[in-house]
Amino acid sequence: MNTLGTKLRVTTFGESHGPAIGGVIDGFPSGFKIDFDSLLQEVAKRSPGSSLLVTQRKEPDIPEFLSGINEEGITLGTPIGFIIRNTDNRGKDYSELAEKFRSNHADYTYEAKYGIRDPKGGGRSSARETANWVVAGALAQQWLKEKGVEISSILSGAGKVSYSSVLLQELSEKPFSISDVKIPDKIKDEIENEILNAKNQGDSLGGSITCLITGVKPGIGDPVFDKLHSRLAQAMMSINAAKGFEYGLGIKASTVKGSEVLDTFRYDEIKGIYTETNYSGGIQGGISNGMPIFFNVALKPTPTIMREVETLNKNNGRTTLTMKGRHDPCVAVRAVPVVKALAALVIADFLV
Amino acid sequence: MNTLGTKLRVTTFGESHGPAIGGVIDGFPSGFKIDFDSLLQEVAKRSPGSSLLVTQRKEPDIPEFLSGINEEGITLGTPIGFIIRNTDNRGKDYSELAEKFRSNHADYTYEAKYGIRDPKGGGRSSARETANWVVAGALAQQWLKEKGVEISSILSGAGKVSYSSVLLQELSEKPFSISDVKIPDKIKDEIENEILNAKNQGDSLGGSITCLITGVKPGIGDPVFDKLHSRLAQAMMSINAAKGFEYGLGIKASTVKGSEVLDTFRYDEIKGIYTETNYSGGIQGGISNGMPIFFNVALKPTPTIMREVETLNKNNGRTTLTMKGRHDPCVAVRAVPVVKALAALVIADFLV
Amino acid sequence: MNTLGTKLRVTTFGESHGPAIGGVIDGFPSGFKIDFDSLLQEVAKRSPGSSLLVTQRKEPDIPEFLSGINEEGITLGTPIGFIIRNTDNRGKDYSELAEKFRSNHADYTYEAKYGIRDPKGGGRSSARETANWVVAGALAQQWLKEKGVEISSILSGAGKVSYSSVLLQELSEKPFSISDVKIPDKIKDEIENEILNAKNQGDSLGGSITCLITGVKPGIGDPVFDKLHSRLAQAMMSINAAKGFEYGLGIKASTVKGSEVLDTFRYDEIKGIYTETNYSGGIQGGISNGMPIFFNVALKPTPTIMREVETLNKNNGRTTLTMKGRHDPCVAVRAVPVVKALAALVIADFLV
Amino acid sequence: MNTLGTKLRVTTFGESHGPAIGGVIDGFPSGFKIDFDSLLQEVAKRSPGSSLLVTQRKEPDIPEFLSGINEEGITLGTPIGFIIRNTDNRGKDYSELAEKFRSNHADYTYEAKYGIRDPKGGGRSSARETANWVVAGALAQQWLKEKGVEISSILSGAGKVSYSSVLLQELSEKPFSISDVKIPDKIKDEIENEILNAKNQGDSLGGSITCLITGVKPGIGDPVFDKLHSRLAQAMMSINAAKGFEYGLGIKASTVKGSEVLDTFRYDEIKGIYTETNYSGGIQGGISNGMPIFFNVALKPTPTIMREVETLNKNNGRTTLTMKGRHDPCVAVRAVPVVKALAALVIADFLV
Repeated sequence: MNTLGTKLRVTTFGESHGPAIGGVIDGFPSGFKIDFDSLLQEVAKRSPGSSLLVTQRKEPDIPEFLSGINEEGITLGTPIGFIIRNTDNRGKDYSELAEKFRSNHADYTYEAKYGIRDPKGGGRSSARETANWVVAGALAQQWLKEKGVEISSILSGAGKVSYSSVLLQELSEKPFSISDVKIPDKIKDEIENEILNAKNQGDSLGGSITCLITGVKPGIGDPVFDKLHSRLAQAMMSINAAKGFEYGLGIKASTVKGSEVLDTFRYDEIKGIYTETNYSGGIQGGISNGMPIFFNVALKPTPTIMREVETLNKNNGRTTLTMKGRHDPCVAVRAVPVVKALAALVIADFLV
Repeated sequence: MNTLGTKLRVTTFGESHGPAIGGVIDGFPSGFKIDFDSLLQEVAKRSPGSSLLVTQRKEPDIPEFLSGINEEGITLGTPIGFIIRNTDNRGKDYSELAEKFRSNHADYTYEAKYGIRDPKGGGRSSARETANWVVAGALAQQWLKEKGVEISSILSGAGKVSYSSVLLQELSEKPFSISDVKIPDKIKDEIENEILNAKNQGDSLGGSITCLITGVKPGIGDPVFDKLHSRLAQAMMSINAAKGFEYGLGIKASTVKGSEVLDTFRYDEIKGIYTETNYSGGIQGGISNGMPIFFNVALKPTPTIMREVETLNKNNGRTTLTMKGRHDPCVAVRAVPVVKALAALVIADFLV
Repeated sequence: MNTLGTKLRVTTFGESHGPAIGGVIDGFPSGFKIDFDSLLQEVAKRSPGSSLLVTQRKEPDIPEFLSGINEEGITLGTPIGFIIRNTDNRGKDYSELAEKFRSNHADYTYEAKYGIRDPKGGGRSSARETANWVVAGALAQQWLKEKGVEISSILSGAGKVSYSSVLLQELSEKPFSISDVKIPDKIKDEIENEILNAKNQGDSLGGSITCLITGVKPGIGDPVFDKLHSRLAQAMMSINAAKGFEYGLGIKASTVKGSEVLDTFRYDEIKGIYTETNYSGGIQGGISNGMPIFFNVALKPTPTIMREVETLNKNNGRTTLTMKGRHDPCVAVRAVPVVKALAALVIADFLV
Repeated sequence: MNTLGTKLRVTTFGESHGPAIGGVIDGFPSGFKIDFDSLLQEVAKRSPGSSLLVTQRKEPDIPEFLSGINEEGITLGTPIGFIIRNTDNRGKDYSELAEKFRSNHADYTYEAKYGIRDPKGGGRSSARETANWVVAGALAQQWLKEKGVEISSILSGAGKVSYSSVLLQELSEKPFSISDVKIPDKIKDEIENEILNAKNQGDSLGGSITCLITGVKPGIGDPVFDKLHSRLAQAMMSINAAKGFEYGLGIKASTVKGSEVLDTFRYDEIKGIYTETNYSGGIQGGISNGMPIFFNVALKPTPTIMREVETLNKNNGRTTLTMKGRHDPCVAVRAVPVVKALAALVIADFLV
């Protein structure tokens, strides 16, 4: 359904081009002072038009909070309802999309499931939904920060330039030298060039996002189906275009020997119990061990490309379709704050 | 918690060396005739001692069904309770393990979470738990088979020999030539040699499992947090040692262009609507599109290796620990039927 | 939490005098044409000012639907988000209520639970929340009607005039002569007089509501904790001021002999299997048997009365408090459509 | 489904005459030492044959714990699995019951829902299931006792002799003189005579149970659908034969004036904040206020009486049926510990 979490529950709604999207955040702790400026900055990072690398659709994305927070900006413990109006939803002609299934999109599957669909901008299946998550996640991040938990995420690959496996390896081997996930400037430039090239060709690129969470105390996560990484995986795979999730050393762990990746336990009076290396990615048996937690999310390229492509119409006849208008050359760019938001919601769900 | 699923709910219990493990399968359809012989064969595939490639612990793993099935073997619609006695749970000395944390195991994190743990064979964190899943999953597979859904899984890599990415590529490009997931004999031999070598060295290997599901009709899966692949990811990441999950073209999709991986819709009278290629892995927008569904699960090597390793005791002092007794050189081998079982439970949860 | 239902899930939010109340209806079937006029009529029944018997606060209560329904008023299968703006929420002075606990209200308990509360009109604990339920319930009723399920509810008692037990007895004994729950005009007049008297005295009255559901086919309800009447009880006891729930012959059943209340099974070709009497209230073993379902909900009087009463301030000192403004002499009057709405949501949750 | 609770989750299984009943208690706190003797005493109270007032079926009801508790009887935090073997399940002839629907029983509704049923002793619909609840509830009661929460329950009425309303009135008016729910000896004798008379006539009686919970701190319970009394109502209505639930002044509250039942807040240094009277039954706005919590559960008579009664066979033909064997003249007697057990599980679910 449209709910994430069990104790801190986020339930969302909204079609891309309907009157509004929004959600209900249930279980958020009471007595917490919200920093709305910081929240709006976080939301802005996901917005279209935030850089040359993303779609130029302009949508301010200002959430209106309707409940659960008093006039002083302090949470009441009651559910926080919010909406974001869709300002960019008029006057377009969607009649062609209503008749044709876009390749690799959710058009056909929504039609198969519901017998009906909203053809305007993908309706419910649009990544616009992730704006709701960023709002909820920004609140969770503020609350987690007071508990010492910090989350950072970065675009670690786009198209042929991928740095995500290297990052996992580095985070595994040098757990104490890294508190914020970063990539070399040279790689960053290569990634940006890759995206701009795709943009110029009217094509799109897959990409990957690496996320690092620090400050989670040992003991977070539940056996056996609510392992911390199981929940992270479910959340991350909910992101539009996500095709893979890996944590700690990740998929590379399937190719090594046990003797090569032992995280030896150590103790000192300042750090307490820690491990020398962190191939485990901060999670053992599904439960946090106090070390940094990190993972990759792999996203496919958006199928919305600026070319004429073949497809079917609703009568099963062959036809062609050309996407018009906005074009997001690498959807992973805008998903960077989404990964952070979801990570915050998953961690907070265990801590509230 | 210890429950998987929402409509078909499997709730499990059991420590590795306690009196018994078991579970409750709630929501299983009524009036279904169970094939117990087939069920026992499925359970046996996961058992220790089933081949030279796995641990030689001998445990028959015969589930006793206690409810929900009548004398004729027909399900009543009421919850199916079952237990599997632990026969191999006596006379060992676990006092050393009670005092020391095994590297990369759940010893420390369970202690951190609960303030207490069962040191015998890993207790609740042992992969013995997966026997419960195979029992429940075997029932689900039988039921799904009547609905035309078939699931196959295979060990697609161990240590340096990895065929899993190749398999995802093949399954993406030739969706109609493959109905059962297979690897070339040559690769199979290489994988087996790799495992036997690790076994002889007292070391362990990571591995990967590829799973293929056919016969799922279009329309299965729920937006937005219960996408079919989000649920599969959560289930698969619950497997002990799982470090990564990828579906369709998988992580490789993060490195390609949109124009390279379009699954063009086609129609013919026999197949109905289908796609020429299947980079989407049978799921679009989180909902099945009728094409085969496939994914990889990457497992790390077990940290239980036959060597003396450094660690901490419960008083934070440095010590060493040597694992004795059984040794599973590649835990992915025994996880092959587990992947199938969990896939069946996830799919059935949407179909019951 | 703030969610009702498992398959058809209604999640609500909103403080009485905040910007808006609202909710998300998740799991509503797709392809259903909403009758908005009928919906508004249902919502109006609960509104203040709807008759002389209720509080005169004027609030139009027009829900704005934000998602899940297309321009033709047809449901999409995606979550239906809606809000109701609070128009009557300004310029009042709530500083006294912020400092004092009203007797029998939720002021103290919210403060105890959350350490903070919204003093304006009861905040989240206000019966204004039930407007959300009526909106969601009205949609459910429309959908159920197409399935042949009809629900009626009536005020069956107020203060000393109580007809609710008589109604249960009648509905038990003459199941086929009653399709809509009614009371004699004479009793109706007595109830109204009772309420007007209380109103004139600035006092308030408890009341009871009887609800009848027809057209539910046999087989609805789940053992053992989701019995149909367990779910109805939970929902009805969520109504502000609810103190009791009884179904079928109700509490009187605890005073009779088994031989007096046997519902003998009969069969004829038109009705199929039925029972001669219906002491069971249409539910046996927690599952519907096809007979009409009926129950009472007992509501206490609102503690908001037009008198000076003793209480405590936040510093635990004795003080007095006089309620000003609107006064609802019998809150059960406005709860009549709420009972119907919740009944519809519970039944629909099993049928979607 | 067959699960009670959200954080402390009890999932049960078992047919009355199958191999065993049992359950999984998930979320029970770790590090708690179980008192097994006390647990067995609690379970024995529900057992058949425990007094002349109940059915004489003999079944020892000794739970076997399979997990979640170590050799020292200390909980591990992992799920507690347990089973109770059915020893009394052989050699009977149930062929008549397989063909006929017993009046007011769940025979017909299970058949309607599942298309199949277990005719032996009512199968899943038997009150034997409540033995599972008493096991789980006994653990919860032990844990709650350490937190200062005590629960007592009593048979407060049977047939024409009903003292339950008087009890609610007393508990409302004199909250501080009562710490354990009791009835006068004279009434107790009358109730016993009433039951013995019914027994001699081969008839059965309805009855009522009153429950008192002390020591619950203010702030327990969740708006709006998980109000403390909503959850209690759902749990209590899950008891076989339950027809009504009322808390605080109960249904009588629907007949009084607001001015008559104000619970005035007071404060003293020892008690802290309290109310002079307790018409609210310890719950305001769905959240505990620190005062004692109390409620009634009304149970109908069992329809299993020692007479020939009319009914239908599976071919819809009229037939007669005579119950043989054991006979429980007032099922409320054995439900007394069940009420306590469920109350403990509901309260503990909020406190774990």
